[in-house]
Amino acid sequence: MSSYDYDMIIIGGGPAGLTAGLYAGRGRFKTLLLEKLITGGQVMTTDHVDNYPGFPEGVAGYELSQRMRDQAERFGAEIRSTEVLGLKPGNPYHTVVLEGGEEVVGRTVIIASGAQPRRVGVPGEAEYTGKGVGYCATCDGALYRDETIAVVGGGDTALQDAVFLTRFAAKVYLIHRRDQFRGARLYQEKVLANDKIDIIYDTVVQEILGDKNVSGLRLKNVKTGVESSLEVTGVFVFVGIQPITGWLEPGLLDQDEFGFIRTNEEMATNVPGIYAAGDVRAKLLRQISTAVGDGATAAFAAEKYLEEQH
Amino acid sequence: MSSYDYDMIIIGGGPAGLTAGLYAGRGRFKTLLLEKLITGGQVMTTDHVDNYPGFPEGVAGYELSQRMRDQAERFGAEIRSTEVLGLKPGNPYHTVVLEGGEEVVGRTVIIASGAQPRRVGVPGEAEYTGKGVGYCATCDGALYRDETIAVVGGGDTALQDAVFLTRFAAKVYLIHRRDQFRGARLYQEKVLANDKIDIIYDTVVQEILGDKNVSGLRLKNVKTGVESSLEVTGVFVFVGIQPITGWLEPGLLDQDEFGFIRTNEEMATNVPGIYAAGDVRAKLLRQISTAVGDGATAAFAAEKYLEEQH
Repeated sequence: MSSYDYDMIIIGGGPAGLTAGLYAGRGRFKTLLLEKLITGGQVMTTDHVDNYPGFPEGVAGYELSQRMRDQAERFGAEIRSTEVLGLKPGNPYHTVVLEGGEEVVGRTVIIASGAQPRRVGVPGEAEYTGKGVGYCATCDGALYRDETIAVVGGGDTALQDAVFLTRFAAKVYLIHRRDQFRGARLYQEKVLANDKIDIIYDTVVQEILGDKNVSGLRLKNVKTGVESSLEVTGVFVFVGIQPITGWLEPGLLDQDEFGFIRTNEEMATNVPGIYAAGDVRAKLLRQISTAVGDGATAAFAAEKYLEEQH
Repeated sequence: MSSYDYDMIIIGGGPAGLTAGLYAGRGRFKTLLLEKLITGGQVMTTDHVDNYPGFPEGVAGYELSQRMRDQAERFGAEIRSTEVLGLKPGNPYHTVVLEGGEEVVGRTVIIASGAQPRRVGVPGEAEYTGKGVGYCATCDGALYRDETIAVVGGGDTALQDAVFLTRFAAKVYLIHRRDQFRGARLYQEKVLANDKIDIIYDTVVQEILGDKNVSGLRLKNVKTGVESSLEVTGVFVFVGIQPITGWLEPGLLDQDEFGFIRTNEEMATNVPGIYAAGDVRAKLLRQISTAVGDGATAAFAAEKYLEEQH
């Protein structure tokens, strides 16, 4: 193959992708960033980001996203809204397939397609998604003013969002399958101090019930085996995340058991010239602060690779 | 050993240390951050930070440092100005030795002591440091208004600071030992476009000359072997960085040939409970964005370790 369209093609416009774009653009590499929806990734669904260093009072998710996008564009990264349907690794160039069958060719590719909430996987979940079943408190919380709702999960997001949802809901049941939470102590304290939150430990959801919309849950205590039902008009599911890699043909890249892409510490995948950064990557901690570190490192590693090619 | 003073002791108050402090404090762990001088690390010597995601117009180094410090303190990290003289790993706790011989004991320790400019290593350098020899353009640049000075190096910092120094100096000689620069293309273009900068390629400094203050340099062209002299009243050295690990007894931790501390991807050193983050760590790219990623990961890994201990 003798021609290419871009030095770097970045798939995904969350913090990892935007930081890679910033570095690549600043390095004067011809850079295309592809984003399906709007840039920002999961940050866009975060009401208030308090743990990204540099913002002591916190910052709204949409504002931080916009600031990162402005910065990447200011350094010359081209951002395009389109869905990526596939990746065809080549030698020396790689082809990214877009919606409509269009293809763009890059000397390097950085995959920063992110992650999304995991489904709880019970009857009624798919049927009532958008009709009472939600995965984003920031997006849908205000729909449940003065209603009784449930939150499923026990990690940081479940705890934070249970508290957040009490701004709207009259009552929030927090349903957790174990007898203690995984989430940070700070959030545990806030949950315990909140009168609007009732915690239901050792319990799993077996079915989401409803007619046109959600009307309740069928629950089961995992220690006693006792089943029960709970009347709610909404349920928010926060049981972890899964990588967004459905567009990637299985077997092309080395992935872990959950589908997260394996890289070395320089963000290189098993295919030369293809990198992964941010939440889509197999790693310990998925945060904005680690995503920007990944994005900068991936772009720098790709620059080094390009310089070694000629 | 049965008692400890802190859950986490963080050594160093640059972006990596402050981010670790933010996460540890936010996680409700009793956290002490130790900083010899003022928090901010090398960021404090950076006039204008343009590549930390979230600040599209850039941000002054001292302002970004202060914002990160405020955020760490807001979440409860205790910050103390004192010099660390040593580390005594123990089981299960670790002792940090402070100036005056005081000792503090931590269940975990995160080393984020950073890096500092490397010396060029020629006669006159130590003698005239502070008398014409400098390592921080932001700090000392304004002393050379309308004078003729030299910059030694060819990487990002050398190029950026050569341009920065033309705000003050009448003429800046940029002395580089090779025939092309290592630094980013963006900075190369700015250097080449600047009339006040004269580039001297293929040349090394052999001696820094002076009486009370610097008066000139003795140079040697590495290709022709020809020696020459250059009249300057100041010289800024930007030839790379070295880890700040002089306080650490050699052999305690696994370090690379330059002294950078080796860790795994979770920032763990070879001693359980001791982590390293930021510029002091052996890694590909030393930037604020990678430092904050390291700091968050180190604190999270330390939290996991603490939770597994009881």
